[in-house]
Amino acid sequence: MTLQEDEETARLAFRDAMSRLAAAVHVVTTDGPAGRAGFTASAVTSVTDTPPTLLVCLNRASSVAGLFEENQVLCVNTLSARHEALSRAFGGATPQDDRFAAGDWTADDSGAPVLKDALVSFDCRIENAVASGTHHVLFCQVLGMRIGAAEDEALVYFKRGYHRIA
Amino acid sequence: MTLQEDEETARLAFRDAMSRLAAAVHVVTTDGPAGRAGFTASAVTSVTDTPPTLLVCLNRASSVAGLFEENQVLCVNTLSARHEALSRAFGGATPQDDRFAAGDWTADDSGAPVLKDALVSFDCRIENAVASGTHHVLFCQVLGMRIGAAEDEALVYFKRGYHRIA
Repeated sequence: MTLQEDEETARLAFRDAMSRLAAAVHVVTTDGPAGRAGFTASAVTSVTDTPPTLLVCLNRASSVAGLFEENQVLCVNTLSARHEALSRAFGGATPQDDRFAAGDWTADDSGAPVLKDALVSFDCRIENAVASGTHHVLFCQVLGMRIGAAEDEALVYFKRGYHRIA
Repeated sequence: MTLQEDEETARLAFRDAMSRLAAAVHVVTTDGPAGRAGFTASAVTSVTDTPPTLLVCLNRASSVAGLFEENQVLCVNTLSARHEALSRAFGGATPQDDRFAAGDWTADDSGAPVLKDALVSFDCRIENAVASGTHHVLFCQVLGMRIGAAEDEALVYFKRGYHRIA
C-alpha cells in the first residue's frame, strides 16, 4: 500500500508493518540530577565503531524524556530470554521505583543503572539529540560495556510477541 | 570494560559486544540517476509513526554510499528465513548485477528495487543525512509498504550467525 491515506490510517499501517521487524529488547536507563528513570525500547541500533556509538529513539512526549536529556547519560541494557517480566515492567505504566525493584542493578562511569545480568550493557554519554517527528534520536557515545554469560539467550520481539534465540 | 583503551582495542571490544545485539536482516536498495545498488544491513530502526520514518546507517566509505545519497530514495527489504543466501550476496564483494540476480524484484513509487517475497518492505525517500563518525544516519520517510505472507519467518543475526523466528 502507499501512504497517501489520512494520517491515522498511515500510522496504523506503519505500526502493522513494523511488527514484522524482529528486534532485540532493551531497558534504557538514566540517573543524575534529574533523577532515575528507565523504559523498554526496541529502537536501538549501532551507528559506528569509530568512535563506538549507539542510537536510541525516545518519544519526546514520554514522561521520562526530559530526565534523559537533562542527565545527559544513559545505559542500554540488552535483555536476555529470562527478562520478559522486566521488559513488561519497564514498558507499562508501572511507577519508576517499582520498575527498578524488578531487577538487580549496579553502575559504571556514567552513573546510569546497569542491569547486572544483562545479555550486554552499554554505558553511554548522550552526545547529540536530533528531532524527527514525535521523537528524538539520541546519539550516544559508548564509555564502557559489560558482556553477560556466553550461553545467554536473546530476547526478541516479533509479530507483537516475545521470542528467544540461543 | 571501559573504553579508555586505544582506538583499535575499543573498536574490537565494541564489535564483540554488538554481536550480542540480535537484529533483523535487511537488503537496502536504491535506483535512480546514479544507478542501482544494494547492501545488507542490520542497523535499521523505526523512529516515529508521525510521519512514518525509518533510520538506516550507511558507511560513508562504502562503494555505494554516494549512489544512495545522489538517488535520494531507498527501499528497506526485511528478509525472511528463506533469504540467507541473498543476505550473503548483498553483504560480500559480489558485483551489484550478480547480487540482484539472486532475487526477484519489482518497484513502487520511489523506483528503488522491492524484493517481491520480502517479509516486509518499506519504500522510502531520504529526507536527511546526519554524520556520525564513519557513518551517515539516513532519515527516511516511508512512502509505501508491502507486507509478506502471514506465516513468513524472520531472519535474525545474533552471535555472528543466522537464526530464524516463527
